[in-house]
Amino acid sequence: VPRYKITIEYDGAYYVGWQRQPRGLSVQQAIEDALTALHLHPVEIVGAGRTDSGVHACGQVAHFDVERKWSCFHLTQALNSFLRDQRIAIIKTEEVSPDFHARFSAIARRYEYHIISRRAPLVLELGRAWQVYKPLDLEAMQKGAAHFLGFHDFSAFRDSQCQSQSAEKTMEIADLQEIRGRYIFTFKARSFLHHQVRNMVGTLKLIGEGRFVPDDIPRMLESKDRKQAGPTAPPDGLYFMEVIYPT
Amino acid sequence: VPRYKITIEYDGAYYVGWQRQPRGLSVQQAIEDALTALHLHPVEIVGAGRTDSGVHACGQVAHFDVERKWSCFHLTQALNSFLRDQRIAIIKTEEVSPDFHARFSAIARRYEYHIISRRAPLVLELGRAWQVYKPLDLEAMQKGAAHFLGFHDFSAFRDSQCQSQSAEKTMEIADLQEIRGRYIFTFKARSFLHHQVRNMVGTLKLIGEGRFVPDDIPRMLESKDRKQAGPTAPPDGLYFMEVIYPT
Repeated sequence: VPRYKITIEYDGAYYVGWQRQPRGLSVQQAIEDALTALHLHPVEIVGAGRTDSGVHACGQVAHFDVERKWSCFHLTQALNSFLRDQRIAIIKTEEVSPDFHARFSAIARRYEYHIISRRAPLVLELGRAWQVYKPLDLEAMQKGAAHFLGFHDFSAFRDSQCQSQSAEKTMEIADLQEIRGRYIFTFKARSFLHHQVRNMVGTLKLIGEGRFVPDDIPRMLESKDRKQAGPTAPPDGLYFMEVIYPT
Repeated sequence: VPRYKITIEYDGAYYVGWQRQPRGLSVQQAIEDALTALHLHPVEIVGAGRTDSGVHACGQVAHFDVERKWSCFHLTQALNSFLRDQRIAIIKTEEVSPDFHARFSAIARRYEYHIISRRAPLVLELGRAWQVYKPLDLEAMQKGAAHFLGFHDFSAFRDSQCQSQSAEKTMEIADLQEIRGRYIFTFKARSFLHHQVRNMVGTLKLIGEGRFVPDDIPRMLESKDRKQAGPTAPPDGLYFMEVIYPT
């Protein structure tokens, strides 16, 4: 049974999220429907990570098994053809070994979060960034972000619905750059807790406003108490950029 | 009578273009309607340049006269409030002297054009760039673009409907950068002919595909014949970035 790995881009605003749900169209379901239309009938496609409604992806990865072999080129073309009315594109298809697993084989995931600071309503970036109305303190947010680096218990930054067994994670990258009023956060780790990036950014934004100081982050981490950290940033600014697998 | 200058961002996909037309909503009309809703009844707002349907703006400029003085801050807020269901935002409002004219006072205009090279359909950049399916020859396009610099008769790159008296223009910037499969063209001149940027980019793209060579540009310019140059690039990739006035 051949197994395929697909790399996927989508506009999260059009979907209830990655995962199939009783109500509303999910990205997973749209792709499964396209596979069914191709008579490929996979049982299920397995994504590298779940994304919430409104969260975008430039490099989500999924795998699935099909009964007969296809060329990767034609599978990509056929899927994109059936997805043409969706805001989903298959960027790449690769045949992988049967022990490849989109979620469990991943050794790292990279997210970006975009905040735009300006007074006027967003137009070209509507639904693609979190708008704030005043400039944020870049250096303070950078100092705050650096406190997330390394091994920590991220309980204070996990959603109450999070089903992960452990909140202990190692942050490999926690970076922030500013380009003309746009703040771009980059986070990379083996895996993330539910809402972890949005909770970290919601907290860093309060540091940028001067309502917390960078040195509050270690205290929040140590507390392991969600109520000590800042609110959850909106989904619009979050991009699931890349999943990394062993070469 | 106070005169105001506004700087405007819009998503061109939602409008028939800048200019008021008998059929369909234009950006000009949407802003005039907002001014009317504010009981400001300007005769007309005058834009620095006309943009076609599908062409975006990050920095279109317009002026208008109103009967009574407003604070620039409140005028911006009020206009954006009335424009909240539109894909138009007023970035800035300034009171200007009665001899300021959005179109005739401008000393330069800057446009960008974005081409994205990839096989998969565009999702996050849908309607925001011209998609090509194969990589383009960056160096050849850069060499081609450089031939547009300086003083030329741009008749070969003007639309047959263009109403400009003269096709003689001086190109101050004709630049091209590539960032991960995205080609960003920048053009700056005092003024442009109708479809000039799209016709130059349509020609440079053929150079990028090897169907023309860079040294064909001087020949096309000399011919003054529209049929000698390449086709008009689609509006989606064009951004009216900035209008420059004397300080």
